[in-house]
Amino acid sequence: MTTVDPTFASCALPRVETERVTLGHGSGGQLSAELLRDVLLPALGAGSALAARAGQPDGGVLEDAAVLDVAGVTLVTSTDAFVVSPLFFPGGDIGTLAVHGTVNDLAMMGATPLALTVAYIIEEGFPLDDLRRIIASVGSAAAAAGVPVVTGDTKVVPRGAADGIFVTTSGIGRRLPAARVSAAFARPGDAVLVSGPIGAHGTTVLSAREALGFEADIASDTRPLHRLVQAMVERRGGDIHVMRDPTRGGVASALNEIAAASGVGVEIDETALPVPPLVAAACDLLGLDPLHVANEGCLIAVVAPEAADEILAVMRSRPESRHATRLGDVVAGHPGRVVMRTLLGSTRLVDMLVGEQLPRIC
Amino acid sequence: MTTVDPTFASCALPRVETERVTLGHGSGGQLSAELLRDVLLPALGAGSALAARAGQPDGGVLEDAAVLDVAGVTLVTSTDAFVVSPLFFPGGDIGTLAVHGTVNDLAMMGATPLALTVAYIIEEGFPLDDLRRIIASVGSAAAAAGVPVVTGDTKVVPRGAADGIFVTTSGIGRRLPAARVSAAFARPGDAVLVSGPIGAHGTTVLSAREALGFEADIASDTRPLHRLVQAMVERRGGDIHVMRDPTRGGVASALNEIAAASGVGVEIDETALPVPPLVAAACDLLGLDPLHVANEGCLIAVVAPEAADEILAVMRSRPESRHATRLGDVVAGHPGRVVMRTLLGSTRLVDMLVGEQLPRIC
Repeated sequence: MTTVDPTFASCALPRVETERVTLGHGSGGQLSAELLRDVLLPALGAGSALAARAGQPDGGVLEDAAVLDVAGVTLVTSTDAFVVSPLFFPGGDIGTLAVHGTVNDLAMMGATPLALTVAYIIEEGFPLDDLRRIIASVGSAAAAAGVPVVTGDTKVVPRGAADGIFVTTSGIGRRLPAARVSAAFARPGDAVLVSGPIGAHGTTVLSAREALGFEADIASDTRPLHRLVQAMVERRGGDIHVMRDPTRGGVASALNEIAAASGVGVEIDETALPVPPLVAAACDLLGLDPLHVANEGCLIAVVAPEAADEILAVMRSRPESRHATRLGDVVAGHPGRVVMRTLLGSTRLVDMLVGEQLPRIC
Repeated sequence: MTTVDPTFASCALPRVETERVTLGHGSGGQLSAELLRDVLLPALGAGSALAARAGQPDGGVLEDAAVLDVAGVTLVTSTDAFVVSPLFFPGGDIGTLAVHGTVNDLAMMGATPLALTVAYIIEEGFPLDDLRRIIASVGSAAAAAGVPVVTGDTKVVPRGAADGIFVTTSGIGRRLPAARVSAAFARPGDAVLVSGPIGAHGTTVLSAREALGFEADIASDTRPLHRLVQAMVERRGGDIHVMRDPTRGGVASALNEIAAASGVGVEIDETALPVPPLVAAACDLLGLDPLHVANEGCLIAVVAPEAADEILAVMRSRPESRHATRLGDVVAGHPGRVVMRTLLGSTRLVDMLVGEQLPRIC
């Protein structure tokens, strides 16, 4: 005879505790990917179908931008919300970041940015001088990038309903005819290139937020990358398979996304990692892995091996990428995984960030 | 001999008190217009130049959307941040509002919406079930409108740094070939039409926020208007001079913007104002002027007088505008001003909202 302990049975009931959004859901790491896969994408079937028609193998919503075919013109569109704290930091502010972030998302799809829109959510009581400064940054960053801000929106919420100001930029670009990039296009044998030093943006913002002192010596790398992309695509468009700017979640997340989307492995060399000494020192002290730290001015390119040297030469000829380097290779083994060959000759798994390392970093 | 009182002289020094953003700057009324004119537009010269090249007489940035010419295709783009409180209200929620708002901004420029992008800013601790509900609303509103969401972004900010969730949508549309609309195209003699009852959205949201009880009987009018616009433009495109959806700031702001942009006067009839009795009762009790209350599902059209009846008939043949009516006329007198002929036979000035009547209404 079997008796059931009612106390035990009740353990099997569904938990009634409310599930809540955590900071990790916005990290650009694993929880972000789960939120996207489990909550956002199922509700947006129509978008995937449209993007798929436009030729994106993964339905488009897993890229940082979407491709649209309008009357024979191939457009790319992207949107990004910026919530960085502090608003002003060495190397830039929320305004420059908002312009560069969207310009770069379009560029990573091989597009020439044509126009930006900007929406501001402002907390009541926010100093008008700070607003003027941020708007001037948006204007000058857009002018320097040669991409006009064509329309916008401004909302004000009562004191306490937002923290200062949030800026959401969207952009429209036109795909370069020679561009054929997707996170799903990496192939075994490809070379993995990076356009410059990594780790500066996240480390600078965190240091400025907490007044740690590093911010006197390091600065965000925020900058537009569309001219670099244009130069690369014009030279060897057909040999550039993937482009990604490793922002939230850092190089580790970008490489993991590429490995997953393409069904390949990625191997990088620790000796090749371009981490500036001051950034490395700051990361050591803060317990951060530079591979997880956000960047706002460098890109990863996965390219055909025979084109790697020529593309590196194009990158090094430009000021925004003169320290471009080869980070590693795409391999057929361990599909979906990223591995680092360490200084000591061993290998270690490079995982996506789980949870939140640095909230409000962009 | 003149002596200067040093105390008096110091009074002439600039005020050191910090100027701050107020709720009125986000009202859609006069302070919003000043912020746009004095702060936002001067920083964005490049955008105006581009929009002007695309044929927008006012530089484009004063419309709710901008026109872009890309390789012979005339595109329209728009962005809107949604901060409504409460998030859920009779007739809709922040998700439906975000889709309809951007679809309608594109439609008001005579465009067929092609794609939307959505950026979420979420407060840590926000219930995942509410997030799912909002995202499902975005998905179903987009599907019902036939406009796909093609890409997006999600940021999470720490508890207290935002109030629940903010949603920013941007959209891309293609201008209907027969559409020739601008806020600057109203001419004396034109008829001013409105597609349906006014005042329901703002009154409903305020009633739901404050639990006033009206929300049991009234509901937001949030709905997409692009199919109505298409029907109107296909019938008499050349005779439709201006289209506006009177959202923040209400009918009064929309008419004042048209009067200012076109350099004309506008006269409307109080007897013709389509204010539902329950909305009128709620406005009376709340001390609101229905002309200042936000709408999310009606449009104002300024049309050639000889086409007015035919366009009204087209509007009345559709479910979203079966109560369309003629509100008044455009006149040559009192340029830049809107006047209402009252029930008592007198006239009164219809001013833009000054300051903030209803924060977080959309």
